[in-house]
Amino acid sequence: MDIMGILGVVLGFICIIVSIMLDGQIMSFVDMASIFIVFGGVICATIANYSFKQFRSLGKMFKIATSKEKIDYKKSIDTIVYLANIARKDGVLKLESEANSIDDKFLQKGIMLVVDGSDPELVKNILETELNFIEERHDRGQTMLYSMSAYAPAFGMAGTLIGLINMLKKLDDPSILGASMAVALVTTFYGVILANLVFTPTAGRLKEKTAHEIMYKEMLIEGILSIQAGENPRITEEKLKAFLPENQQNKMNAEKKGE
Amino acid sequence: MDIMGILGVVLGFICIIVSIMLDGQIMSFVDMASIFIVFGGVICATIANYSFKQFRSLGKMFKIATSKEKIDYKKSIDTIVYLANIARKDGVLKLESEANSIDDKFLQKGIMLVVDGSDPELVKNILETELNFIEERHDRGQTMLYSMSAYAPAFGMAGTLIGLINMLKKLDDPSILGASMAVALVTTFYGVILANLVFTPTAGRLKEKTAHEIMYKEMLIEGILSIQAGENPRITEEKLKAFLPENQQNKMNAEKKGE
Amino acid sequence: MDIMGILGVVLGFICIIVSIMLDGQIMSFVDMASIFIVFGGVICATIANYSFKQFRSLGKMFKIATSKEKIDYKKSIDTIVYLANIARKDGVLKLESEANSIDDKFLQKGIMLVVDGSDPELVKNILETELNFIEERHDRGQTMLYSMSAYAPAFGMAGTLIGLINMLKKLDDPSILGASMAVALVTTFYGVILANLVFTPTAGRLKEKTAHEIMYKEMLIEGILSIQAGENPRITEEKLKAFLPENQQNKMNAEKKGE
Amino acid sequence: MDIMGILGVVLGFICIIVSIMLDGQIMSFVDMASIFIVFGGVICATIANYSFKQFRSLGKMFKIATSKEKIDYKKSIDTIVYLANIARKDGVLKLESEANSIDDKFLQKGIMLVVDGSDPELVKNILETELNFIEERHDRGQTMLYSMSAYAPAFGMAGTLIGLINMLKKLDDPSILGASMAVALVTTFYGVILANLVFTPTAGRLKEKTAHEIMYKEMLIEGILSIQAGENPRITEEKLKAFLPENQQNKMNAEKKGE
Amino acid sequence: MDIMGILGVVLGFICIIVSIMLDGQIMSFVDMASIFIVFGGVICATIANYSFKQFRSLGKMFKIATSKEKIDYKKSIDTIVYLANIARKDGVLKLESEANSIDDKFLQKGIMLVVDGSDPELVKNILETELNFIEERHDRGQTMLYSMSAYAPAFGMAGTLIGLINMLKKLDDPSILGASMAVALVTTFYGVILANLVFTPTAGRLKEKTAHEIMYKEMLIEGILSIQAGENPRITEEKLKAFLPENQQNKMNAEKKGE
Repeated sequence: MDIMGILGVVLGFICIIVSIMLDGQIMSFVDMASIFIVFGGVICATIANYSFKQFRSLGKMFKIATSKEKIDYKKSIDTIVYLANIARKDGVLKLESEANSIDDKFLQKGIMLVVDGSDPELVKNILETELNFIEERHDRGQTMLYSMSAYAPAFGMAGTLIGLINMLKKLDDPSILGASMAVALVTTFYGVILANLVFTPTAGRLKEKTAHEIMYKEMLIEGILSIQAGENPRITEEKLKAFLPENQQNKMNAEKKGE
Repeated sequence: MDIMGILGVVLGFICIIVSIMLDGQIMSFVDMASIFIVFGGVICATIANYSFKQFRSLGKMFKIATSKEKIDYKKSIDTIVYLANIARKDGVLKLESEANSIDDKFLQKGIMLVVDGSDPELVKNILETELNFIEERHDRGQTMLYSMSAYAPAFGMAGTLIGLINMLKKLDDPSILGASMAVALVTTFYGVILANLVFTPTAGRLKEKTAHEIMYKEMLIEGILSIQAGENPRITEEKLKAFLPENQQNKMNAEKKGE
Repeated sequence: MDIMGILGVVLGFICIIVSIMLDGQIMSFVDMASIFIVFGGVICATIANYSFKQFRSLGKMFKIATSKEKIDYKKSIDTIVYLANIARKDGVLKLESEANSIDDKFLQKGIMLVVDGSDPELVKNILETELNFIEERHDRGQTMLYSMSAYAPAFGMAGTLIGLINMLKKLDDPSILGASMAVALVTTFYGVILANLVFTPTAGRLKEKTAHEIMYKEMLIEGILSIQAGENPRITEEKLKAFLPENQQNKMNAEKKGE
Repeated sequence: MDIMGILGVVLGFICIIVSIMLDGQIMSFVDMASIFIVFGGVICATIANYSFKQFRSLGKMFKIATSKEKIDYKKSIDTIVYLANIARKDGVLKLESEANSIDDKFLQKGIMLVVDGSDPELVKNILETELNFIEERHDRGQTMLYSMSAYAPAFGMAGTLIGLINMLKKLDDPSILGASMAVALVTTFYGVILANLVFTPTAGRLKEKTAHEIMYKEMLIEGILSIQAGENPRITEEKLKAFLPENQQNKMNAEKKGE
Repeated sequence: MDIMGILGVVLGFICIIVSIMLDGQIMSFVDMASIFIVFGGVICATIANYSFKQFRSLGKMFKIATSKEKIDYKKSIDTIVYLANIARKDGVLKLESEANSIDDKFLQKGIMLVVDGSDPELVKNILETELNFIEERHDRGQTMLYSMSAYAPAFGMAGTLIGLINMLKKLDDPSILGASMAVALVTTFYGVILANLVFTPTAGRLKEKTAHEIMYKEMLIEGILSIQAGENPRITEEKLKAFLPENQQNKMNAEKKGE
């Protein structure tokens, strides 16, 4: 679990609740009708915009956004260099027995394609097509969340307009004017908070994770193609290390020397 | 019929109607003059922006947006692999008799071009030009709907300004002030709802469907060109399967093994 | 004349006028000072942003936006195929006598370049450079109109601020408060209407027309280059027909068979 | 001096002043504190966003934006064709003596590189790098002005909020309520006017001028490379004329025939 | 220290404080609850959007944004030309001893790769990958700051809505109405100021610095590859000088002649 991400949202809500309670009552901000119009509107518009199937994937997206990343560049580079050495010494066919013990499914698939003796162009083609689809699927998730963060304030405003119009229609009792207006404004408040503390940050986090995953998989493709091309494992390692930030490169080099 | 899409819009309107009736009367939100200015303005601006011909295609677009998708990757891959086998064994001319039984018009056209012995470059050129035009036509539909979703709040605001100015000009009777203002706000309400529950979601749904169709047709082009190039049907299949999401790839592989 | 485009704007204004008169007087919305600030501001900012020369081209742009399109794909394809046949049989020099009877100046120019025996690369270069400039000139027109549709609400707001500040400075007579505020809001109203019923739709229409013209001229270039390359006229025709939407392609094929 | 550009801004301010004086006093809109917060805020944010050095270039940018363009396509084409003729007859070395009398520094530099016998690739490389830097420097100027046109309304709003909060804190004397609110709104007014009558139009004008200059210099590069390649001067002329709008092309052709 | 950048922000705050004190009291604008909701909200949303690790890098980013640039084109060009001369005369291996005395780590690394006899394609590949990562890391910093400048006004508005709703719920004491509303508006004020005087300018400054650094490193890569290709040092110098603005080029040329 990527606790900090969830903590961000939770602490954000605590901030808001504390702010409310400093000078008012939390119950002024809980209004079932307001929740109904804002959530209902956002959910319905999202289903209409995408599809029910994609809408259901929302749970999965929140899960991805809040899960811990399991990318280990160092380990993968070591694995690829190890495989490159085997391929160089004993031929790519020897990789078949190694492939089963590779944790990363994407790397495993790539190595199997190499073992199968597929054309290098085809291997690259297949792996990049797959990468594109992973990117596209994640993109869609982000796009849906960004749409929701645009729908939320819109339905918040719709709710406030409903409240205002209803209020203006029965102005005879001015004593409840303030309270009615307060209730009307609650939907706008919901819209702002939902958009800026839930939807936009989650979409942003998904975007970050996608970027990391894509970069990681690009490194794997580079490594697989380098193995297939029979390049010197030292060159392979150099190429892959260029994907690391400088401080991690230095760390890897230092460890190497220490060995 | 893509029921969920329509259901999204319908349930969205029900949400709004229920919200209104929780604390007011639905009739406060029905105002013929407001409907006239918002709908009239949006329709006129759209006709002026595009053309009457394109505006009339709106019905068709709503129909596309709410129709069920009929893309069957698995079946098309099987068909293409089947054709690839025939082409390999008996030559591309044999495909002529098969072409008539192909359901997909785009695939059929591509196969006919292959049968005609057209130059591979020309086949690719013609199919991709056609794909571009399909994309462009759909793009236009989306663009028009996005324009409408920008015009709607603008004419909503124009209507509210008309209401406010009329109201301010005859302030002598303060007792109707509230009611007049309520009426003025109704147009803004219409604009927000139209934009966020009708136009934007429909445009979004069209965009999704276009993306799916384009990806599907790209796979067909890949397959047609692979047949023409006389590639091994197994390679053709590998290439096409890369267009499927991973879980469907696994499913297809599993079925294959089960055979 | 592209009557529907103008009709869109005219009907839009009628909508607004009717809306006003349902509950108020049209004279409340006519205020010379408001017209002065909104139109004056928009015109001055546009001249400062672009140039007086370009600003004067506004009339021409409105004329283009409201003129009927004279693109006839079918006729042009027939002409090009006819020329391709001549070029194939009698050589490109024979095209010189035909060139004079070509209506389309762009096609004529291209054919003359072919007749002149210019290098294919140069012909392509010159025609594409010309196409780029046509596109760029039209782009500028659109951009100017989009700028105007951004300036209009801004000066509308500026006018309203002027009205409000003037009103607030002399609050001693509360009886005219409402009327003053109404006048102040008229400029905002002008800004919204100008942007959404005049500038944005006209810019959009220009964009549509440009897109059509560009696509049409791209087809002409494809045809000219195909003639110069001495390709089979049937291939030329196939290539050009790919620029048509499917239903028109079918129609042309049907007519052909009917011949 | 590009008088129309300045006139646009000047007339715009006159429009606004006349609008104010039709129904109020100009002094209600002059408030030193408001000028201080809006100008001060915009200037400080711009310095913080860019650098003091770039901020100081603002004067130069206004000068560029309001200076008359000195691009003379016809003359430059004539010069290049003249040089191409010399280079063809007497060799590129002969151009050295001509180079000194070329007005345009960019063209002169390019010709000198040709005379130096530099590699064509290097000449192209150097001239295009230089063009990129010219473009980039102008881009930066525009970007800074667009930033300022975003900061202006923001600090206008900040000023209004300061005014409102101060006013609300001392509500005891309702008689000055209107006047205080008027003063508060003046900053918003300043922000709107500055953004829409000064910063955005100036940025736009710079953008136009940059586009013209870039296109002109691209033509010069095309000409220089054509000279170096030893192409037929007639071809060079054809290539360069494609950079002109059609009516100017026709005019040049007509003059030619008239000679 | 890049004093002007910090000065911009500091003077901006002084402007605002002076503006406040001209007509009110600074204490009306200091409200702990408002600070809590705006800062708390922005920080929590940013952590949820990015990661805690990236959020912590904020300090580093502010440091980069306010640090003095240490790019010295002239010195680096001299160094590269010096190295190019050595490489030409004594071979690239001689560069090893020189490499240690190069200040710039990026240039040093590139030279070491050349000394190692790596393939030119690989050198380019590694250096450009590294450049991409530097760019990407800086991009992320900017993106985070731009996100914060979007969250700030949103949480400012949320705070104002909280204040308004609390106020409207207890309208019984109208005497405190003004003061409550003033407090409610303070959060909006904070949001506007934070976005426009802190986050956006800092993001902009980072963007400027990144652009400078990228251009500088691109020049270094050009130089390193030119050394490896064994090009004439004079050509190398010409190529690198094209990266300088014209006035600095002239200055360098003048100095050269003066030598």
